[in-house]
Amino acid sequence: MDFLKAITASEACRILDTFSLSPRTETVHIDNAYARVLARDIVSSESIPAFARSLVDGYAVRSRDTQGATETNPLFLIRTGAVRIGEQAEGRISGGDCVYVSTGSMMPSGSNAVVMQEYARQVTDGVEITRTVYEGEHVCHEGEDIKEGVIVLEMGRKLTAFDLGVLAALGQSSIPVYERPGIALISTGDEIVAVDEIPSPGKVRDINRYTVTALVEKTGARCEFLGHVADEIGEITEKLQSAGAYDMILISGGSSKGERDFITDSIEKLGGEILFHGINIKPGKPTIFGRLLEKPIFGLPGHPASCAMVAVRFVAPLATRLQGETRGQEITTQGVLATNVPSSYGIEEYVPVRLERAAAGVSVVPIFSKSAVVSSLAHAAGYIIVPQGTEGLEKGETVEVYFF
Amino acid sequence: MDFLKAITASEACRILDTFSLSPRTETVHIDNAYARVLARDIVSSESIPAFARSLVDGYAVRSRDTQGATETNPLFLIRTGAVRIGEQAEGRISGGDCVYVSTGSMMPSGSNAVVMQEYARQVTDGVEITRTVYEGEHVCHEGEDIKEGVIVLEMGRKLTAFDLGVLAALGQSSIPVYERPGIALISTGDEIVAVDEIPSPGKVRDINRYTVTALVEKTGARCEFLGHVADEIGEITEKLQSAGAYDMILISGGSSKGERDFITDSIEKLGGEILFHGINIKPGKPTIFGRLLEKPIFGLPGHPASCAMVAVRFVAPLATRLQGETRGQEITTQGVLATNVPSSYGIEEYVPVRLERAAAGVSVVPIFSKSAVVSSLAHAAGYIIVPQGTEGLEKGETVEVYFF
Repeated sequence: MDFLKAITASEACRILDTFSLSPRTETVHIDNAYARVLARDIVSSESIPAFARSLVDGYAVRSRDTQGATETNPLFLIRTGAVRIGEQAEGRISGGDCVYVSTGSMMPSGSNAVVMQEYARQVTDGVEITRTVYEGEHVCHEGEDIKEGVIVLEMGRKLTAFDLGVLAALGQSSIPVYERPGIALISTGDEIVAVDEIPSPGKVRDINRYTVTALVEKTGARCEFLGHVADEIGEITEKLQSAGAYDMILISGGSSKGERDFITDSIEKLGGEILFHGINIKPGKPTIFGRLLEKPIFGLPGHPASCAMVAVRFVAPLATRLQGETRGQEITTQGVLATNVPSSYGIEEYVPVRLERAAAGVSVVPIFSKSAVVSSLAHAAGYIIVPQGTEGLEKGETVEVYFF
Repeated sequence: MDFLKAITASEACRILDTFSLSPRTETVHIDNAYARVLARDIVSSESIPAFARSLVDGYAVRSRDTQGATETNPLFLIRTGAVRIGEQAEGRISGGDCVYVSTGSMMPSGSNAVVMQEYARQVTDGVEITRTVYEGEHVCHEGEDIKEGVIVLEMGRKLTAFDLGVLAALGQSSIPVYERPGIALISTGDEIVAVDEIPSPGKVRDINRYTVTALVEKTGARCEFLGHVADEIGEITEKLQSAGAYDMILISGGSSKGERDFITDSIEKLGGEILFHGINIKPGKPTIFGRLLEKPIFGLPGHPASCAMVAVRFVAPLATRLQGETRGQEITTQGVLATNVPSSYGIEEYVPVRLERAAAGVSVVPIFSKSAVVSSLAHAAGYIIVPQGTEGLEKGETVEVYFF
């Protein structure tokens, strides 16, 4: 294969990261907003809580009225009433008095602390306090959770369960989010048959269709399979043309030189542009990326493990950006390499690994396999990256593990 | 509150882990199988690949015919044909000969290695080989990915993108999975109003509805909100009765003693049983768990952060088990604590944390907050656990961080 023009992984990332995209926005109800990406900063329109609340069942007091109170030297406070949860607190604590509050009740004005009921004995007309409380004890102050007028959630954030809690607290039921992009997936290859067919000798079932769809949909994008075409420039060109309505096109298959040429030729025939052909990575070298109808298009390697790894490292980040998501920190862990990992200088290599608990932390066990092997990934917890400027990693080195 | 009978977190886990459940199974098409849980071991019905394949473009040879071949001392082999990808390999390599193969082509019988085309020069009637290849070089052998008759994916596994690749390779388009359980969620509390209402003084919007739904659905279960009821035993009992068709019931709200009593009384009134009331954890102490109509039922704390943390630590694992999933290793990382974390002896405490890159690995920064505070979780990457048998953790200690 002619990979004289293969570029480095970091150059490929730079090209992908600077590819111009215009994610569209829409508004969804909070019921449907989980894992969607915020299209606007959310500024709090009110303070949360909107009023000081008790965090326990007990008596709202002025803290200084409890100074010196102990089990053996209790202090007496007049009980002037109670605030039921959900009710407005009436009246006012003015000194020497207290009001019963439940967990979550509004604090009456003039009070600044709560004595838990375990430290208060009911007596005629009032209670005996057996413990000193400090100012603010057992109280959640107005605005302590969220202050009014601040940015509580930033644009580009994928909404978590807790973010939904913040939005609900603020009464935001209509959430501005980015649309889920639509991604077209095409399989090529004369050797490929559908999952429910018995392959005749020399043929194999379409694996990439399922792995790529799942990896893309995991990012939040929608992936639609447009079908399988033979290794024939006319068929490929026609199928690419039918994908014009999508936000990104993935065409998987073809690892031999001829097949790759059909893909690049088809893209160019349709007025597209090849931005790179070949990345110095392993697996995944024969990856093609270009622009077709102003949309990003990937030609993914045919080998299942190569295809999957390129989808993880290069396609998924672009799918993420297509829906406006700000790329966060990748979820990683560290561990100690259990064996040497040889690699070639000049190639960035991705090696699937298992994680094992070891005496001193985590042992990282590489799963060596040929790039055609799909089961190696199924049994991996994640992968490590061997940088291009090295000839491998050594047993005992501490390495970063990227979770799938 | 009366938590004299509060149990430890590990006792609570033991009760939850031994609660008898009967997940139902169904069959889904591979197109819809992503993230579903396998209900049966998958045994490979064939070898993958089903035939030896070339991993590169080049010439299929007998490796011993290339012994000694170098750039300056090439060896000549007769070219007897080519195997196109997807075709059955005809003919046979018998010695001194070679056949052109593409990446993915079936290896002709008698061949055991491939010379990459970069190391073969075409000459009249044949090729000159300029490099020695070893037996098996650039070949993926029959069964090298998956052997016939072995368990490739185990029952109880949540299917990943790569697992779908394995199933596709084997031609498994109908996948036996567990049904997604249906989980009923009820909010209680006189102080609670809906997200699109303006709370009158003393009232707050329903936060737990959204956080709990998302945390439960993240496990793969379906969560249906059955509505909000007042702190009134009749209303609560009636609503619990209407939840009988679900696989698990969650009733959130009520952190004061009276409200908790309504929940336990309602469960018992309907013939249910309270298995524990109170866990020695922080936040989340007033958690109730029981059995109602043979289904698990949780009374979740009303405080949003407490409720969310209990959903993460106790509800989600049970929801996972309800759909037959074998609990895997939790995704964690390690880091160095940036500050002291005081805690009470006898309480297992969950502290949300941020992660920061530090010179020597990861710095774990606790986010201290009161349990009513929801925004603290939104800005956390995960949480750490302060064991019940300690009085806290110290700055500089290496701690395990659990990702949300």
